[in-house]
Amino acid sequence: MNAMIQFEDFSEAEINNAIEKSWNAFLDFRTFTLRQKADFMRCIADELAAGKETVIRLAMEETHLPYDRLSSELTRTAFQLKSYADACEQGLWMDIRIDTADMAATPARTDIRKTMTPLGPVAVFGASNFPFAYSTAGGDTACAFAAGCPVIVKAHPAHAHTSEWVAGAIQRAAQKQNMPDGIFTHIHGAGFEVGKTIVMHPLVKAVGFTGSFSGGKALFDWANQRPEPIPVFSEMGSINPVYLLPEKLEAAARDMAGHYAASITMSMGQFCTNPGLIIGVNSHFLESFINSLAEKIQLIAPENMLHAGIAKAFTDNRTKALGQKGVAIAAVTQFTAGELQGIPTIATVDANDFLQNPVLHQEVFGPYSLVVKCDSMDEMQKIADSLEGQLTSTLMATDNDIHQHPLLVDTVKNKCGRIILNGVPTGVQVCPSMQHGGPFPATTDSRFTSVGADGIKRFARPLSYQNWPDSLLPPELANNNPLKLWRLVNNELTRTSLPS
Amino acid sequence: MNAMIQFEDFSEAEINNAIEKSWNAFLDFRTFTLRQKADFMRCIADELAAGKETVIRLAMEETHLPYDRLSSELTRTAFQLKSYADACEQGLWMDIRIDTADMAATPARTDIRKTMTPLGPVAVFGASNFPFAYSTAGGDTACAFAAGCPVIVKAHPAHAHTSEWVAGAIQRAAQKQNMPDGIFTHIHGAGFEVGKTIVMHPLVKAVGFTGSFSGGKALFDWANQRPEPIPVFSEMGSINPVYLLPEKLEAAARDMAGHYAASITMSMGQFCTNPGLIIGVNSHFLESFINSLAEKIQLIAPENMLHAGIAKAFTDNRTKALGQKGVAIAAVTQFTAGELQGIPTIATVDANDFLQNPVLHQEVFGPYSLVVKCDSMDEMQKIADSLEGQLTSTLMATDNDIHQHPLLVDTVKNKCGRIILNGVPTGVQVCPSMQHGGPFPATTDSRFTSVGADGIKRFARPLSYQNWPDSLLPPELANNNPLKLWRLVNNELTRTSLPS
Repeated sequence: MNAMIQFEDFSEAEINNAIEKSWNAFLDFRTFTLRQKADFMRCIADELAAGKETVIRLAMEETHLPYDRLSSELTRTAFQLKSYADACEQGLWMDIRIDTADMAATPARTDIRKTMTPLGPVAVFGASNFPFAYSTAGGDTACAFAAGCPVIVKAHPAHAHTSEWVAGAIQRAAQKQNMPDGIFTHIHGAGFEVGKTIVMHPLVKAVGFTGSFSGGKALFDWANQRPEPIPVFSEMGSINPVYLLPEKLEAAARDMAGHYAASITMSMGQFCTNPGLIIGVNSHFLESFINSLAEKIQLIAPENMLHAGIAKAFTDNRTKALGQKGVAIAAVTQFTAGELQGIPTIATVDANDFLQNPVLHQEVFGPYSLVVKCDSMDEMQKIADSLEGQLTSTLMATDNDIHQHPLLVDTVKNKCGRIILNGVPTGVQVCPSMQHGGPFPATTDSRFTSVGADGIKRFARPLSYQNWPDSLLPPELANNNPLKLWRLVNNELTRTSLPS
Repeated sequence: MNAMIQFEDFSEAEINNAIEKSWNAFLDFRTFTLRQKADFMRCIADELAAGKETVIRLAMEETHLPYDRLSSELTRTAFQLKSYADACEQGLWMDIRIDTADMAATPARTDIRKTMTPLGPVAVFGASNFPFAYSTAGGDTACAFAAGCPVIVKAHPAHAHTSEWVAGAIQRAAQKQNMPDGIFTHIHGAGFEVGKTIVMHPLVKAVGFTGSFSGGKALFDWANQRPEPIPVFSEMGSINPVYLLPEKLEAAARDMAGHYAASITMSMGQFCTNPGLIIGVNSHFLESFINSLAEKIQLIAPENMLHAGIAKAFTDNRTKALGQKGVAIAAVTQFTAGELQGIPTIATVDANDFLQNPVLHQEVFGPYSLVVKCDSMDEMQKIADSLEGQLTSTLMATDNDIHQHPLLVDTVKNKCGRIILNGVPTGVQVCPSMQHGGPFPATTDSRFTSVGADGIKRFARPLSYQNWPDSLLPPELANNNPLKLWRLVNNELTRTSLPS
């Protein structure tokens, strides 16, 4: 890694030039068929698979992530590209609506048909913790291509060489699939000025980001201050609260502790769905849970964090959190941690101290979780009321617990994008039912997901065709439905064709 | 009207109190069934129909709109409420996705099911030009109720008494349908401070607006400056360009002129889809079109504008537009207009002057349209390239024209929400295929529509349930599909139930 060359930041002129090429590519790409877009995405997946060993070696050097983790992440990345390619062709993301003419109606109705059209070039800022799945050829890029948008990736400086290799794979796929020049742009930049120049450029029409609150919020603010504001999908992490309800806690304290020790420390806690807050009501069952969790955490060995910046942030944030009023350490790994390593840690605090201290609501990105001890379920409700928007929330609860506490359940639902019952929040499945996005500050737009094929909708907008003859309509709107898509025709969902 | 009392602006304390009640209503309303929400909406429609003569009389006094126009607008408003109620129950807006567990897969898959959850209290700022359909019980309100959100309406001061009556009708429906106290809030305020107080309140979670650019953009900026930014759907109008392509112009110049004279002056041009810009290439066919249009415009009598403010703005903007370099009057109504009346007017300008003058891109809200005369189709392309986002764009074109000018067609598509072929943009049908919303500055969020049932999606966000037992799932996600909704189950769209 030390032997690797550093990439120089792109100059403003280079960035402007690249974005103009991206716009020119858009003029072509927006007219491509669903099949062409999908085949391009599948070809990228194949290129990634073909270079797997090479790129994993690069990523291991840059990120400190182990082979197995990177291997499964690369497999996931290829799966994303292929499954979103399938979804692109399946066409549900276009929400096709057709209302045929009815000149006998009062007032007379003309023929109107609605499909989706791409927004334009999309800027993607990848995550440091997922060099493949949420980065250069990750979910944002796949969704943008499926929607018909060229992509401009700002490489994450923590894995710039990995990113450079993945960009090359995308370029090879673009050539093989005859994509327009400029369909994919790869920009290096360690400073925030490069990112700002990209987001402020008038030809950039949307932004995808995964990372810190400060980074994601800055992009959002810039984008909204443009003469033409553009949508920003910043996924900024969360503390993913876990509520231990009384009956469940009594029945399964030790069992839960085992699952949570693993969830908190997997990949040294460097997941945006890491459970950073666990809330229970004081009882000897809660003590038993904490003790079991503590025993297991002590046995977990420190590992290298992704990079020096994240390691330092973990150390600083952990120290800050542990120094807050009322916070006590319940467990620390029994092993000595190196300078760049995460220190598996569990802390506790009383609900009253938690409620009075916003610092404790902040994410400590790494293998750390805080157990909040409440005097009563009323106090647990107060905690739920006090929390900000989250990617996920988890209820550890029996059916009876759920029935006994409807207000708590509703409160928790209202503050997250995914609500888990009796599970752990880590592990984000790539499937249509996944919602990865929650109320602010978890993300800047809770109405969309960054995982699952519905994420394609972020980068397209509806376009209605009024009074167009069949021969001039795009294929997804044509009478004979050549793509056999599901369409809402005169308010009935159907795949059949319309009479010509 | 002069005898009518003026409503006093609500104080900040009154507004805060009302919004807190709205939030409390949300805590209940979000748990209501689709049927309960739909029945409430239908009941509002019935209350409007029952009081039709009373409220139309009020609106005639306040808005100067004639009986027939108000009558059809009220019918449309009731239709919106009923058709969105049907769409609420039909459930497509929830984009339901179900992926069942597969413990044999690698990695094992847990059961995840995605539905929609409401955002929270929605603030609605109605339009001056549509006292019913885009105001108090209009499309934004109907969509918010369908999504499960309480509504806070800031009454438009230009029809505050009409708004007060409609609010009463909503309150009667709320009582009849046992809605929670606070489900609907009606706030008076002539100054912008009232609007700002509403939008900045932390318990308000989304905003719908129809009106001017300055008003809509101010709400957008306030909302994005909040500690917790919220989505704003401002529909801010547009100039709705009409492109006359050569073969069509040659074939149908006089016929088109008749349709456009009517479209430009209907309701004194006070529609957000009024065709304010017509673009053609110089020829004697274009002269013939302009002459025919001029003849017809001269015969159209002035009528009262909606209110004194709009009349004054029309006079000012028309004078400003006519005073720009190269702008010539082609026709003015032959009748003398009163002080509060619109003056049907057609002006012309050469493409070169238009391209150099951003003032001419601005909407003149009223019975006014500007014909831009180009030297060539290349110049028409430059006009298309230079225009901002629009609600609608129209192509008057033969099939051959469309085939001959693919870049122009693509450029136009990329700048509007609805593209009309051989028609007029006025007349916004309420149907699922309608897109009423276009790229900025037409609206602040081109990814959503404010007309048609898909507008419900503005006020809800996806929520995934992971690993919940069937008995605890909301009905739309339950195995036996009691509501018989369309759902994407393991990637197949189906209405059948799942095995329990």
